[in-house]
Amino acid sequence: MSTTIDNSHRAAVERASTIKRVAEILSDIDSLPVVARQGAPLPSQARVREIVALCRRLLFPGFFGDGALTRDNAVYHMGVDAEALLDVATEQIAAALRFDNCATEECLTECAAKRAIRLLESLPAMRHVLQMDVDATFDGDPAATSRAEVIFSYPGFRATVSHRIAHQLCMLEVPVLPRMIAEMAHNETGIDIHPAASIGEGLMIDHGTGVVVGATAIIGRNVKLYQGVTLGARSFVRDADHNPVKGLPRHPVVGDNVVIYSNTTVLGRITIGAGAVIGGNLWVTESVAPGERLVQAAPDNIIRVNNKPQP
Amino acid sequence: MSTTIDNSHRAAVERASTIKRVAEILSDIDSLPVVARQGAPLPSQARVREIVALCRRLLFPGFFGDGALTRDNAVYHMGVDAEALLDVATEQIAAALRFDNCATEECLTECAAKRAIRLLESLPAMRHVLQMDVDATFDGDPAATSRAEVIFSYPGFRATVSHRIAHQLCMLEVPVLPRMIAEMAHNETGIDIHPAASIGEGLMIDHGTGVVVGATAIIGRNVKLYQGVTLGARSFVRDADHNPVKGLPRHPVVGDNVVIYSNTTVLGRITIGAGAVIGGNLWVTESVAPGERLVQAAPDNIIRVNNKPQP
Amino acid sequence: MSTTIDNSHRAAVERASTIKRVAEILSDIDSLPVVARQGAPLPSQARVREIVALCRRLLFPGFFGDGALTRDNAVYHMGVDAEALLDVATEQIAAALRFDNCATEECLTECAAKRAIRLLESLPAMRHVLQMDVDATFDGDPAATSRAEVIFSYPGFRATVSHRIAHQLCMLEVPVLPRMIAEMAHNETGIDIHPAASIGEGLMIDHGTGVVVGATAIIGRNVKLYQGVTLGARSFVRDADHNPVKGLPRHPVVGDNVVIYSNTTVLGRITIGAGAVIGGNLWVTESVAPGERLVQAAPDNIIRVNNKPQP
Repeated sequence: MSTTIDNSHRAAVERASTIKRVAEILSDIDSLPVVARQGAPLPSQARVREIVALCRRLLFPGFFGDGALTRDNAVYHMGVDAEALLDVATEQIAAALRFDNCATEECLTECAAKRAIRLLESLPAMRHVLQMDVDATFDGDPAATSRAEVIFSYPGFRATVSHRIAHQLCMLEVPVLPRMIAEMAHNETGIDIHPAASIGEGLMIDHGTGVVVGATAIIGRNVKLYQGVTLGARSFVRDADHNPVKGLPRHPVVGDNVVIYSNTTVLGRITIGAGAVIGGNLWVTESVAPGERLVQAAPDNIIRVNNKPQP
Repeated sequence: MSTTIDNSHRAAVERASTIKRVAEILSDIDSLPVVARQGAPLPSQARVREIVALCRRLLFPGFFGDGALTRDNAVYHMGVDAEALLDVATEQIAAALRFDNCATEECLTECAAKRAIRLLESLPAMRHVLQMDVDATFDGDPAATSRAEVIFSYPGFRATVSHRIAHQLCMLEVPVLPRMIAEMAHNETGIDIHPAASIGEGLMIDHGTGVVVGATAIIGRNVKLYQGVTLGARSFVRDADHNPVKGLPRHPVVGDNVVIYSNTTVLGRITIGAGAVIGGNLWVTESVAPGERLVQAAPDNIIRVNNKPQP
Repeated sequence: MSTTIDNSHRAAVERASTIKRVAEILSDIDSLPVVARQGAPLPSQARVREIVALCRRLLFPGFFGDGALTRDNAVYHMGVDAEALLDVATEQIAAALRFDNCATEECLTECAAKRAIRLLESLPAMRHVLQMDVDATFDGDPAATSRAEVIFSYPGFRATVSHRIAHQLCMLEVPVLPRMIAEMAHNETGIDIHPAASIGEGLMIDHGTGVVVGATAIIGRNVKLYQGVTLGARSFVRDADHNPVKGLPRHPVVGDNVVIYSNTTVLGRITIGAGAVIGGNLWVTESVAPGERLVQAAPDNIIRVNNKPQP
């Protein structure tokens, strides 16, 4: 009996001393190469998610709220949502500016409030562009039963909405939040669009898992991308100190009405001409002329072994 | 001092007027091409998630509850879960019928209640099929340590469970909910199976990210799909008004015991014969005979540049 | 009127009898081939998520907490987090040992507490390795604006953190939890790394959706993997009873400083020599020499059809 007590006492002592020892090692913040701003809240995943949810409700009335919205009360619901958006966007833009050390503490709130207002003001034009994205998605998918279904449940369209919000914040030179929004969409849909990428109206992303669009990519109007398409960089330039040079154009320029099928990788600052159609599972590192069609030379690079059923 | 007050007063006035102006533009619902049903709740993501969770608990007793279930009390736990399932399924099926405008308000609840009962009644047979899916997954993965691990934590199996529930609702002609369930599974696992796709027992999806199975695909028994496999459409028919014709068969028919390796794209209403084995990273648009094996002509289409280490 | 009452009464009776009938069928636990441990809580998804969150806060002070941490109070915050980690890890390791039936009920808690302490003690060394992963990610991505951004929002890095925690639990022979942590990361990022895989420091996974790393893979230092890369098994050995033999080496060995581009599949126990660069969309089943570069013979296996704009 007393042995058990001894053992359990010894275990408790060991436990306490381990906690103390490890906490001391880990709390030696000066030894860390990268330290977060101390004593100030970072941008919050949950609050940034609210920004996107409020924008989505304002852009598509009746689709993402509690169902109480009608023609008659819409203006009040949207007034409340617009005010909530300004509040949470101001708060999170301030946290982002602080995270990036790119504003003095004095001008932080004012600076953030101004950009939040610009975000709100951008919504009517953004809605217009998104309506064309809805049309393109409905028109491009025989399995879509209605435009409402596209708005309500298509992941490609969901990622497009998030991108247009993130891109707007990017244009307003808000740090960190655009990437947080892009990563939330990436997490939800498997579609990874860098917020700086410029994308024309009428975008359709079908299925979408594995799509990657790089920071300096430029995409025209009515472009259709299938799952697994990468618009990426071939390589990048390093400076004299061997550090990557940031910001140079290194991703493709894709013309209007281009279609790129599943799992194709398009790399480098090349141009895909308007109306080109690029088949699936290709590796494309040279420009493609307008209207050109690329397909895998399938029969030649596949070996068929007949009539050998597996065990 | 008074300048600061003036500034902050001016900012507050600008803010209020911006909110008013933008809310008025955005609440002009009549200008929108697509409007959600007003004044009525849409199907709820959270409640539909509950439907799936309740089905999962009923299908796999002890695996997804709070651990209180035993042989002796199982029937009571399952009675409670079955009743809860009927309640939430009736509520959400009614919301879905309303969303799709496919039932009059009078018959909505009765109609929904009937389909919810049919869903509940389908669970014993669904469990039987899913046991074969568990066997196939355990048997096909040397890394699987037990059948319990497959049920508890394999994403391919999780997506299969969601698909069988969504497909059942699809057969019961419930709108919207099947796609919501499919998209939840897609979000969780990266596996995008259209709820209308017909899939035999003994399905194994390994890893799964990027798998796409189209609406009219037909998959036989004991089929094994690896990550990134697409069973998609090659193109689709448009009617005289250039609108896509919905519902035509356009996805592959896959026979029993077929294996398709990672990142291969199979397109069009072609047939993959029973027992065929299709290698990875292929683009397949022609039918494959039973027992045939396809592999990429790897050495021929890869250029090797020797002994040039990267800087 | 009385017909309505009759109908609604009949519906209620049918409903109750359906619930009873289905619950009785489903609760026949003895008919099930796989049964969960009864009357005991299984490992909890939410609590295991807490383990990862606590480790992340201890590893990167100030990045994932509520912003109250400073140089002066760090040791107290981390003491509290370390103690919370021990509590929840002990609880969940015990549940995992029970799930796997690999410890007697007597030694369960003691056995679990010891492994939880080992996990805590591993964090300082893990932090050191992760700092090199941060450096590699920042250095390898021209779009990264700071190391803080990498820690805070890069999904490839997030999956790497989860893997290093899961791998540590794997080394401590904790069942189930490592795979749960790996699947959570897979769900969040689309990156599926088996917890048993051995990975050197300086790992960079860019974008990451669709990456698969198998259980027996061995990855060297400063390796860079792009989205959709599979390090998988070619086939596996079955024993006399046709069951898969578990645990044999069947995944690639990847040397230091290797780069593998998007959507390439590398299969089997082959060796990719140090410094090799493997292009995208390839299917690689033979070893690659150190410093060798593989690229798709792109112009040869793509057919170009010029100047045929799509309708």
